[in-house]
Amino acid sequence: MSLLVTGSIGLDTLETPSGKREQVLGGSAIYFSYAASFFTPVRLVGVVGEDHPKSLFTLFEGREVDTGGIEVRSGSKTFRWHGSYLKDLNEAVTVEVDLNVLAERAPKIPAGFLDSKFIFLANTHPALQQEMLASLKSPKLIVADTMNLWIATERAQLVKLLSKVHGFVLNDGEARLLTEEKNLISAAKKVLKMGPKFVVIKKGEHGCLLVSDSGAFVLPAFPAEAVVDPTGAGDSFAGGMMGYLATQGGTISGATLKRALAYGTVVASYTISDFSLDGIKRADRDKIDGRWHEFKTAMSF
Amino acid sequence: MSLLVTGSIGLDTLETPSGKREQVLGGSAIYFSYAASFFTPVRLVGVVGEDHPKSLFTLFEGREVDTGGIEVRSGSKTFRWHGSYLKDLNEAVTVEVDLNVLAERAPKIPAGFLDSKFIFLANTHPALQQEMLASLKSPKLIVADTMNLWIATERAQLVKLLSKVHGFVLNDGEARLLTEEKNLISAAKKVLKMGPKFVVIKKGEHGCLLVSDSGAFVLPAFPAEAVVDPTGAGDSFAGGMMGYLATQGGTISGATLKRALAYGTVVASYTISDFSLDGIKRADRDKIDGRWHEFKTAMSF
Repeated sequence: MSLLVTGSIGLDTLETPSGKREQVLGGSAIYFSYAASFFTPVRLVGVVGEDHPKSLFTLFEGREVDTGGIEVRSGSKTFRWHGSYLKDLNEAVTVEVDLNVLAERAPKIPAGFLDSKFIFLANTHPALQQEMLASLKSPKLIVADTMNLWIATERAQLVKLLSKVHGFVLNDGEARLLTEEKNLISAAKKVLKMGPKFVVIKKGEHGCLLVSDSGAFVLPAFPAEAVVDPTGAGDSFAGGMMGYLATQGGTISGATLKRALAYGTVVASYTISDFSLDGIKRADRDKIDGRWHEFKTAMSF
Repeated sequence: MSLLVTGSIGLDTLETPSGKREQVLGGSAIYFSYAASFFTPVRLVGVVGEDHPKSLFTLFEGREVDTGGIEVRSGSKTFRWHGSYLKDLNEAVTVEVDLNVLAERAPKIPAGFLDSKFIFLANTHPALQQEMLASLKSPKLIVADTMNLWIATERAQLVKLLSKVHGFVLNDGEARLLTEEKNLISAAKKVLKMGPKFVVIKKGEHGCLLVSDSGAFVLPAFPAEAVVDPTGAGDSFAGGMMGYLATQGGTISGATLKRALAYGTVVASYTISDFSLDGIKRADRDKIDGRWHEFKTAMSF
């Protein structure tokens, strides 16, 4: 089924123990789209300035990503983020951020995208997330992400959003901030009470936790020795998860969700193996399936 | 097969967000023995002072723990530890420690225990661990634990010990300290080069990691909402693991080791559910098997 993502597109400057890259392509919607397109066609909605890199469009050549929803806004500048993992590979320190075009009005969802069934609202202001949601005709599965900034400054809007989504994806620090619960299962249960049917808490190198009414499922990260750049791991995870779910039809069982989380985990393991999108670009569906089965076998006891 | 453990026996004062307990029974060998005795008879070797609590011997009434190796030393005082988890449930802060009898000579392994096949050398000075090892006649599987103190102060002795054991169990912080590798898989591989055939890195609430020549296996912790007191979780884990292994005969396959780690995980989940040994005392083999199968099912995708 059709999968739509709205989120950020940016130019990242990245510092990790493995080196530095300046002004490379990034952003939640970019990682998500690349990851999801291994599984299903993706409709990408986002906005950049006139200064966007050419690689934004060449990246998706030959892939089933419809970039017709990318608005190139005249007179505006592309979102820029400078992050460092020199202190801790598991947590980015923001050195500098220029919201630029992201601080302006949201991009418009093209008319041809409004019938999308699977929706991923990558991190942005929760009021904008709701606005984009409102324009969709008949979504079947809506999953949203967020960040600590909105939890701290726009809690009321975020709580409103939560009452309108089926699934919510956030990281461990954000879950604790949102719920004031240290224990992640308790935190996830509090989030469930706000509306979603399932919550996925991403724990970086420690994997992820899924909580729904039918219980908790914990999945470690794919065992990786060489983590070069964790940027985009969470968005690649969400892309792999949603991409797989979109191929499974309208009703999502608990077993399907678990398989989807494992696909997300595997796709993210490619992303972190190199800077920017260089790691995930070396993956293909056969490799992903191979690693998925390897992971499944390794995890069985 | 016969399972021997040598390690500490102590009086713990524990502070956690759930409350405080003063001078309750604890120590690595106590938690280990209780945990392992769900699976197989245990031979316990340790030393206490005249001031040991009566509960030390009543604890094991009706259980297959041979306490004939506990030396009650006249004129000596029992080991005491005061730990606090008020800041972080995942990491104990030592408020006070009195080594007392543990700073004296090691206990003697009774003659009747010297033919033990499965050996767990719980944390103590690595020279003492080697001394006890040397007296054993024909051990089949030797697994050791350690702590940050010995890594920092007795590295040469610890490296010597590592060349003499089959398995090594340590926590994430200790693995990083020992190898100066941040990535835990890299750290485990470095430890393998020092001698052991397998390394288990305990990651507290994030589960554990097994690395051997045949690859890496990651297991999350049993999803627990109510962590009351993490004291003894690692020793209970080791006890469950070794107890199960001792029932599986002399040759340990990778699959057996994975099942053993899952048993360790399940047994530890009982320990952390209440203070001191109160949680694990509410477990029995049927409950453990039930939770093990629940864990196995929950972990499958």
